[in-house]
Amino acid sequence: MAEPQVISVEDLLQRVGSIFESCGLRPESAQAVARVIVAGERDNCKSHGIYRIEGCLRVLQAGKVVPDAIPEVVDSGKSVIEVKAHGGFSPPAFEAALSTLVGRTKENGVAALVIRDCLHFSALWHDVEALAANGLASLSMCPSYASVAPTGGSEPLLGTNPIAFGWPRPDAHPYVFDFATSVAARGEIELHRRAGTPIPDGWAVDREGNPTNDPEAALAGAMLPFGAHKGSAISTMVELLAGAMLGEFMSKEALDFVGGTHLLPRHGALVVAFDPATFAARSGRDPLAEGERLLTAISGQGARLPSQRRFAAREQSLRDGIKLSAEEMAQLDRFDREGLTAVQD
Amino acid sequence: MAEPQVISVEDLLQRVGSIFESCGLRPESAQAVARVIVAGERDNCKSHGIYRIEGCLRVLQAGKVVPDAIPEVVDSGKSVIEVKAHGGFSPPAFEAALSTLVGRTKENGVAALVIRDCLHFSALWHDVEALAANGLASLSMCPSYASVAPTGGSEPLLGTNPIAFGWPRPDAHPYVFDFATSVAARGEIELHRRAGTPIPDGWAVDREGNPTNDPEAALAGAMLPFGAHKGSAISTMVELLAGAMLGEFMSKEALDFVGGTHLLPRHGALVVAFDPATFAARSGRDPLAEGERLLTAISGQGARLPSQRRFAAREQSLRDGIKLSAEEMAQLDRFDREGLTAVQD
Repeated sequence: MAEPQVISVEDLLQRVGSIFESCGLRPESAQAVARVIVAGERDNCKSHGIYRIEGCLRVLQAGKVVPDAIPEVVDSGKSVIEVKAHGGFSPPAFEAALSTLVGRTKENGVAALVIRDCLHFSALWHDVEALAANGLASLSMCPSYASVAPTGGSEPLLGTNPIAFGWPRPDAHPYVFDFATSVAARGEIELHRRAGTPIPDGWAVDREGNPTNDPEAALAGAMLPFGAHKGSAISTMVELLAGAMLGEFMSKEALDFVGGTHLLPRHGALVVAFDPATFAARSGRDPLAEGERLLTAISGQGARLPSQRRFAAREQSLRDGIKLSAEEMAQLDRFDREGLTAVQD
Repeated sequence: MAEPQVISVEDLLQRVGSIFESCGLRPESAQAVARVIVAGERDNCKSHGIYRIEGCLRVLQAGKVVPDAIPEVVDSGKSVIEVKAHGGFSPPAFEAALSTLVGRTKENGVAALVIRDCLHFSALWHDVEALAANGLASLSMCPSYASVAPTGGSEPLLGTNPIAFGWPRPDAHPYVFDFATSVAARGEIELHRRAGTPIPDGWAVDREGNPTNDPEAALAGAMLPFGAHKGSAISTMVELLAGAMLGEFMSKEALDFVGGTHLLPRHGALVVAFDPATFAARSGRDPLAEGERLLTAISGQGARLPSQRRFAAREQSLRDGIKLSAEEMAQLDRFDREGLTAVQD
């Protein structure tokens, strides 16, 4: 068996960007998509790393994403700004709107970004980290494909509906959480399916609504929300705020539109950003210093802050490069060589 | 044993308002506090009903709340508005700022209200329902007393940190959830303590960090967040957004300030409001009609929407009056007669 190989973050970025560029994306868009995918791989977040390339190519090959879409920022001067992805991938749209969102948030204290009509595949932590780097707290959420039954129900109506939150820290990686509101992410079940391993108890029900440990049966049935009725309520909120409120697809419509989960979903996304400096201004206190008191106390009692494992992997990747298996390297080579034909049925 | 008695919602409102007025609250403040307490009782939400009167009187008797505080709305013209409660109860402050928050949200699409320096005891659903009645979606959250250990930790650093969400429905009660980010609300453990019944598994750990079913041990130890690390992350977010970001107390500071949980906590609160009409404007879709598709589908598959039991109790109370036990009626009489001396140690 061939040995794993090490590739630098920069080199991987260049390789992944070039794959997407050769598949018809504009250079800026190819870079934006590559940045998100390589960030996932860099952070050892395998379900959002180069594993995602294939899904992106498949949707390009199927003609279900607009490769040369130019994101259009619509700024009405209000606290809600919009970016029309025009059927393209979401990362270029987010990047196009970032500076306007940051500016408007600092001006008004709170602002929201609506991403319209995009194909979404990326981890949301990427967005909230970009805002934290600008000193802003933020919440990001989006629907996905209906694959989760509401608590007490049996049919999938909700998506895995991720929600992410970021909070800037003066001399440390930001406080960031990003999780599916299902017990598990669909990608995790998918990885179990590929590995042929059973999924843990409580993750899903089969088509008849019975508990199952079989990843195939789970993917055909329904996943369950985390935290019982509370998680189910939060997932419903994500559908309402990041679907219905934007006038974009909710998870059930996204699924009906494509007719299956074999291709990436098309929907909108919502990012709400907060400027702590504005909110705290009249208090005479430094909001970030206050936040540190809590965060260091949590770490201090031995509890792990979310994303710490990811940040540790990031530091190692930036220092030592990213280790990819021979199979992963071979797949990159194949994508590079064959482009979209690599994913032809 | 004396029979339960029935009292109309209006009469109970008058009685509770008069108790607070006779304890030194301004008439407007007494009414605002009474409205929130009677709404809880009306909705058969016993842990936020007239049970709360005693706690409010105790804090008045202890001189830890400013009875005649006049809420001051500070409107900088931004999307963040503030109301200084000046050490008074939170409901009068929220009521004072409501119309400005609604106006600013409709103008800018999204806006936030900071409530500063208040004593908080009320259910958050009251606030999000008031916004839903104005056609707005909203999120409301606040810290409380440090009584919850972060997942993986053992010492209480987080509060029960409630979070509520409201979404307007055209011809129905709004979609509303409101829950503690702890597995249980502190009030629920308190009710178990009073009833002498054990608490369920998984609610709490004792002072040494061991699981416990004893409500006394739980109140002395630490409660646990709902949904393991995900709930713990959300609770931490509440501390950061509704505590640190506002420059107001987080749950640990609120506890240190008073020195115990025998009196209501003093801290701030955050309400973020969204105007669906603004967010959906460029989509050509009706956001509320879209929301109905999801909500009726959830009910349609037999899953219960949050707050439905509360709304059913409300309808019954408005129709048939509220049934109070002889003890509860006797307590109201005593509060009416004795005022603050009723809660003297």
